[in-house]
Amino acid sequence: MNDWTFSEAERAAVYRAIHTRRDIRSTFLPQPIPDAILWRLLGAAAAAPSVGFMQPTEIIVIRDAEVRRQIHAHFESVNRAAAEVYTDADRRAYDALKLAAIIETPLNLCFTCDTTTQRGRGLGRQTMPETAVFSTVCAVQNVWLAARAENIGVGWVSILEPETVKTRLDIPAHLTLVAYLCVGYVSEFPAQPELETKGWEHARDLTEMVYFDRYGVRQP
Amino acid sequence: MNDWTFSEAERAAVYRAIHTRRDIRSTFLPQPIPDAILWRLLGAAAAAPSVGFMQPTEIIVIRDAEVRRQIHAHFESVNRAAAEVYTDADRRAYDALKLAAIIETPLNLCFTCDTTTQRGRGLGRQTMPETAVFSTVCAVQNVWLAARAENIGVGWVSILEPETVKTRLDIPAHLTLVAYLCVGYVSEFPAQPELETKGWEHARDLTEMVYFDRYGVRQP
Repeated sequence: MNDWTFSEAERAAVYRAIHTRRDIRSTFLPQPIPDAILWRLLGAAAAAPSVGFMQPTEIIVIRDAEVRRQIHAHFESVNRAAAEVYTDADRRAYDALKLAAIIETPLNLCFTCDTTTQRGRGLGRQTMPETAVFSTVCAVQNVWLAARAENIGVGWVSILEPETVKTRLDIPAHLTLVAYLCVGYVSEFPAQPELETKGWEHARDLTEMVYFDRYGVRQP
Repeated sequence: MNDWTFSEAERAAVYRAIHTRRDIRSTFLPQPIPDAILWRLLGAAAAAPSVGFMQPTEIIVIRDAEVRRQIHAHFESVNRAAAEVYTDADRRAYDALKLAAIIETPLNLCFTCDTTTQRGRGLGRQTMPETAVFSTVCAVQNVWLAARAENIGVGWVSILEPETVKTRLDIPAHLTLVAYLCVGYVSEFPAQPELETKGWEHARDLTEMVYFDRYGVRQP
């Protein structure tokens, strides 16, 4: 054991966060998130990996009710359009899903990425410039798991026009909007993903997702 | 306390993984990763969130030495070209960095995303189709944190041409290459990011990364 070694109990806790994290839409409670806990979540974002250590992520903490109302109104409008691609049973299933909790949650977090920053001096971004934005996604996942460990739920809303959200939040044109999260305490963490429970999609078998040495090879 | 509540010790373990995770390049050990632990890491990937529960991620587990030699040769070639953009002290600093451990690690993991899959029935992808690839990045971060809890190091190599890697690994044209990881046990987890220790880039203050209600507003 070194001082950097994780114990079995610590390892189990990390896996527990990974496996019981959920995309929460409908079990949020209104109670506010204390500032000390908010800053722990933000600290988890700052600890995320970034290509070339460029740290391109900035986060807007949204608690103002009027700002959230504006984002919610935009979501409603975009979601009506999104529903139009579904027909019959699919449309009824889609309409029965709750897909955002912008108003009900006391806290929204908007993640942006500055792909133009000189920080990191371009290291690692010549052949895969998309890794700048990927760095911000890693920050989102860190926050999601930290929130789970705080017994706080998170729902990622992607039914938004990035440019409209940027305008509403005064986000400069050169920044990329990466994620918009609804964050709050919950009455429960469901055992299964909600889209699985509601029959929207089934879970894949792990073995179906894995190949060995080359794509398509099932056994090592 | 509900049965889904995290204890303080569990919460601390999750934050410990988040804050002590490192992008490892130079302290890898050759010992192989047991299959049971490999499958736990892969299970962490499968537990990642995905837009519309589309689960677009597939992973190639690479242990074959010849495959790794081919990818390493490609990395060396691309890295020589990448170094050319730096001059003088920057060039010397770049050349002194170790940026991949494809050969030294016993295990490489290549993450792909199928943005064309019908799984998830397009939910959440109409206005932000990039969230398909983001789902795969969330899987990468899950594996990175799970590895930290297993006392296993991970280095993400982005100095690769995605199309070349796809060809080398027989990855179908319609899939997106998202990440290539070097994975192995380590002699230590450094206290600070290596690019910080080596003076390539400094760490940002957390408060500099956070705004309230609208971009540019520092106080709520």
